[in-house]
Amino acid sequence: MLKLFYSPGSCALASHIALEEVGAPYETVRLDFRASEQRKPEYLKINPKGRVPALATDRGVLTETPAILAFVAQSFPKARLAPFDDPFAFGRIQAFNSYLCATVHVAHAHRIRGYRWVEADDEAALAAMKRKVPQSVGECFELIEREMFAGPWVMGQDYTIADPYLFTVASWLEADGVDSARFPKVRDHRQRMAERPAVKEVLAEERA
Amino acid sequence: MLKLFYSPGSCALASHIALEEVGAPYETVRLDFRASEQRKPEYLKINPKGRVPALATDRGVLTETPAILAFVAQSFPKARLAPFDDPFAFGRIQAFNSYLCATVHVAHAHRIRGYRWVEADDEAALAAMKRKVPQSVGECFELIEREMFAGPWVMGQDYTIADPYLFTVASWLEADGVDSARFPKVRDHRQRMAERPAVKEVLAEERA
Repeated sequence: MLKLFYSPGSCALASHIALEEVGAPYETVRLDFRASEQRKPEYLKINPKGRVPALATDRGVLTETPAILAFVAQSFPKARLAPFDDPFAFGRIQAFNSYLCATVHVAHAHRIRGYRWVEADDEAALAAMKRKVPQSVGECFELIEREMFAGPWVMGQDYTIADPYLFTVASWLEADGVDSARFPKVRDHRQRMAERPAVKEVLAEERA
Repeated sequence: MLKLFYSPGSCALASHIALEEVGAPYETVRLDFRASEQRKPEYLKINPKGRVPALATDRGVLTETPAILAFVAQSFPKARLAPFDDPFAFGRIQAFNSYLCATVHVAHAHRIRGYRWVEADDEAALAAMKRKVPQSVGECFELIEREMFAGPWVMGQDYTIADPYLFTVASWLEADGVDSARFPKVRDHRQRMAERPAVKEVLAEERA
């Protein structure tokens, strides 16, 4: 059975929703980041990066949200969460998810994980990074709103693996100091996502 | 015909090599970053992010290295650059490429593109970021060397779209102040990559 390692409030939410959407048989393991469980030896054997999400399968462990999302979609094709028979359409989804992973999530991470990129005791540099987050994350969402979001779902008429990922990253907007009212399409998307049974189910578990 | 927008020395090299490896009919457009050509209106129409790579296809433009690499592999299946019929094996490649894109490339970018995450005139914060790059990039490559690199190619016996991407990112090690002698597998991989006809061809064009 698939086993998802996650922590509440993290980007693992996207993979968690996708597993629920496709009706996969899976179980979850919750890591407590405040207790640094993601850096304990038993977890580093599963994911040496010490991050979430990680998805244990019968053939080994997969990491990185874009990879897990594509794996879930491809393993449960009846749910039609990605068009694997159309390289260009699949490429558009991959491009969107890569942008969330490598640009939007990274901009966000400078608010509380700045120690990845400067010394952990450099208070001034950490504060400088934190100050820029509303602007850098805001610019990312301007681009998403204006150029990338087809509607009603990210890619257009079809709900895909881009949707739970956008929902996840957009849920950080307020904490990042960005007014989501600037992005009506993204905000409407968040509301429609929150009404999906799979999303309700997953949020109830993660918040329990 | 496919058209790749690149700039020399950038991560677009990975997509360029992949196009050459599969024997795709393609042409290239070189952008001069010193003249900020990537931010000019005519290019922003192609890629509103103002970055490279961008791949223009007859159906539209694709961006983001992991997406372009997968698109090229899937569009030219005879070259066997990715196992699309095996969700787990494809997922491992995607996970590796996501790690390069969202963690390794990002760590590297703090050396000269720190203005993305702090104010551009904050010299102290920019310098703090730059100082950490040898450590953060070095730790990424320790993980690649120890945990991710199967050998002789990244994924094992088969040359895949993970290989040109690792080759590209590893080519920045010295400039990032990291001694590549610490990573014998990665260094050996770079040498074998440099001997491939497609890589020679592409490097000759990009350096011309």
